[in-house]
Amino acid sequence: MSLPEALVASLTALLGTRFSQTNADRDHHAQSESFHRAPPPDAVAWPKTTEEVSQIMAACSAAGVPVIAWGAGTSLEGHALAYSGGVTLDLTQMDKVVQIRPEDMQVTVQPGVTREALNTELRATGLFFPVDPGANASLGGMAATRASGTTAVRYGTMRDNVLALQVVLADGRIIRTGSRAVKSSAGYDLTALFLGSEGTLGIITELTLKLFGQPEEVASAVCAFVTLDDAVECVSATIQSGIPMARIEFVDAATACAFNQREGTTLPESPHLMIEFHGSPNGVREDAGRFGEIAAEFGAKDFDWATTAEDRARLWRMRHGAYHACLALRPGASGVVTDVCVPMSELPAAVHAAADDIAAEGLIGPIVGHVGDGNFHSLMLVDPGNPDEIAAAKRVAKKMAERALAVGGTITGEHGIGVGKRDLMAAQHGDAWAVMGAIKQALDPQNILNPGKMVPDRN
Amino acid sequence: MSLPEALVASLTALLGTRFSQTNADRDHHAQSESFHRAPPPDAVAWPKTTEEVSQIMAACSAAGVPVIAWGAGTSLEGHALAYSGGVTLDLTQMDKVVQIRPEDMQVTVQPGVTREALNTELRATGLFFPVDPGANASLGGMAATRASGTTAVRYGTMRDNVLALQVVLADGRIIRTGSRAVKSSAGYDLTALFLGSEGTLGIITELTLKLFGQPEEVASAVCAFVTLDDAVECVSATIQSGIPMARIEFVDAATACAFNQREGTTLPESPHLMIEFHGSPNGVREDAGRFGEIAAEFGAKDFDWATTAEDRARLWRMRHGAYHACLALRPGASGVVTDVCVPMSELPAAVHAAADDIAAEGLIGPIVGHVGDGNFHSLMLVDPGNPDEIAAAKRVAKKMAERALAVGGTITGEHGIGVGKRDLMAAQHGDAWAVMGAIKQALDPQNILNPGKMVPDRN
Repeated sequence: MSLPEALVASLTALLGTRFSQTNADRDHHAQSESFHRAPPPDAVAWPKTTEEVSQIMAACSAAGVPVIAWGAGTSLEGHALAYSGGVTLDLTQMDKVVQIRPEDMQVTVQPGVTREALNTELRATGLFFPVDPGANASLGGMAATRASGTTAVRYGTMRDNVLALQVVLADGRIIRTGSRAVKSSAGYDLTALFLGSEGTLGIITELTLKLFGQPEEVASAVCAFVTLDDAVECVSATIQSGIPMARIEFVDAATACAFNQREGTTLPESPHLMIEFHGSPNGVREDAGRFGEIAAEFGAKDFDWATTAEDRARLWRMRHGAYHACLALRPGASGVVTDVCVPMSELPAAVHAAADDIAAEGLIGPIVGHVGDGNFHSLMLVDPGNPDEIAAAKRVAKKMAERALAVGGTITGEHGIGVGKRDLMAAQHGDAWAVMGAIKQALDPQNILNPGKMVPDRN
Repeated sequence: MSLPEALVASLTALLGTRFSQTNADRDHHAQSESFHRAPPPDAVAWPKTTEEVSQIMAACSAAGVPVIAWGAGTSLEGHALAYSGGVTLDLTQMDKVVQIRPEDMQVTVQPGVTREALNTELRATGLFFPVDPGANASLGGMAATRASGTTAVRYGTMRDNVLALQVVLADGRIIRTGSRAVKSSAGYDLTALFLGSEGTLGIITELTLKLFGQPEEVASAVCAFVTLDDAVECVSATIQSGIPMARIEFVDAATACAFNQREGTTLPESPHLMIEFHGSPNGVREDAGRFGEIAAEFGAKDFDWATTAEDRARLWRMRHGAYHACLALRPGASGVVTDVCVPMSELPAAVHAAADDIAAEGLIGPIVGHVGDGNFHSLMLVDPGNPDEIAAAKRVAKKMAERALAVGGTITGEHGIGVGKRDLMAAQHGDAWAVMGAIKQALDPQNILNPGKMVPDRN
């Protein structure tokens, strides 16, 4: 489909060179971190202000043309791919930190600010924004997918850390949700509704976030376990003991091997936990000591405490590089990434079953996880030209999701639905999926916001 | 209006004596803790199961008759009053604790279970449910109003502590929202949407809640300040210092006086803070010591540490009795309760301005607050037969709400909208209020769920 001439004229008048129909710009927005691929959008727009987003939406609404929001392009389920064509709204130029309010421990940002850029800007204030999905994602994109990551066990997810939003609706109206108060009972929780809506209900153009004091003391470590079960059961026991961890990450033997190859480390090729404690010097010492006792019961060894800030940064850079380190285990491979999350008591069995399934299909599929939340991923390395391998990986992914649902968990802990998980929405939600469809219909009657995603097809 | 005969027949057949049209039963459900009054509903139904709720909703939907959910009747804004008649759905007989899962620190309950009943049931597990609005409210009602209370500063509100819901929709369909995983990115956050929807989108028939380990050590204290500003600024300073408090409550001089009259205490008649710390013995000692240093800077004195469990229970019983203790300051009076919540940095000025407004109108209006959240209440004691006093109190309430909005806060931190705050929804939400109306229209097209509340009137 090509765009109506009148729409092209009005968006060109509005945005000048920030509106493009060139193949290079379109193709750039047809790419994805994962194996999902789609045709490019018909055009790309780079707004700088909420008012421009509003005018773009009004124009596209009048023309009935799809609009797909684009953040940093780091999503893993093809969320921002333009399967129905239309205009991709690239928000990278809305990258201003609008206001820091240290006394309220809050910041207001535009959606294109990345989490790393925000934390650089905050450094002098003694505050930081803790949600950390690994990738240097945009905060708008993190909000739109209800992202979380390594620190959710302590600081929560985007659901817990967004106080207020400015949103442009399908017809161009601009609304504000939430407030700067830390709690409110004033009506439907529209903030929560837009968080995780993946661009299907509105375009987030401003976010007010909670900040936290940079911890007085930080202690990080990595330790090895003999078996996967030992490591995962150690996590369950630690959670139940109430020890406040800032991070507790599982990586399996294959991932440790990938780290060694890419980072030059000499980790034993066995399952590991990577942990971090935040607090006062006494508190951190006490917490680390108690964790050490529990870990010893599960046979932990090779404790390596990162004592300097540089060592800690290297430790978490390694963890955050797991995706690319694992991809390098098989040059040329694409990743099929899973993202289930289960109740803590179900975690050991779920990880074990996933590992067995991957082995039974003969796939390479390292497992890592934010196991303090019951959330884990396998990254199955498939030859993108081999349909049998892709099918095998998808079989494993489906089994993992079904097993998560059977024990009361979820098909996605933090990556979101995109195109990769939509087939599982009916199984996850039953009749509640139709309720999501009714809300979508109410807010976007023309179905122009990221169409073909999230909700059931309309009849 | 009277109910259609066919509806009466079908509900009688379904529920027997658990369906009533007697004046006594109807009148009981026309009462409210606050000054709001309404005509009674046409009938009252006491379902015991989700399936019965579903059948009631289907029958009322077919007849176009309103349905108003009723929990413990402790709401303060007339949420459950039947202004348009219809059937009040009294959920007190749905009072089963369905399943406790200690290993996941979760419990599933029916909506009529009260928070005190739940905590009694949990005592032997070492776990507790922390959200504590003071009143022994039902958990369904607390969810429907997104309640919080004294412990939100540490444990969060109902928004943070409800993992999953079972909900009966307007047409009788039964859905489940959320999951037992602690986080999920699987689609629109319907759990959050129903939390705080005050019975206007569906009837909550089951809730899965997060639980917490009973703290190893607890320390509570009350201390006096010379001025209101000193007390409130001490709270701001404490929050910014990052000291983890389990509770930090402000009561003003008038409330201290009410406690003395009702409880026989001998508190100085000046502003007070009531505080509590939860944690390990070392952690609590460290936190309490750091708080003591900050409080001393603001001139705190008369520190009274509650060292036994009995003393602590008495302290918080006293705080929770503030509403009735203050009402007793003026026998025969009704209370006009306010509930604003503002960013922490705005709290001292907001409390001060409210106190000035109350004094300027010549009203008695003690102020208490969950000041760790920036949330505070005045309880203005008015003669229910004196329209001038009621008008004066409402003027003060409106000013407080408008002032809260002007500084980025909210018209209600925890009580909800009901009938008392609906006039302020447009000011709070602007065009977002219409979005709430669109969602209501999508989920309840006949407008039978608690009609006349929450959303704009339909054209």
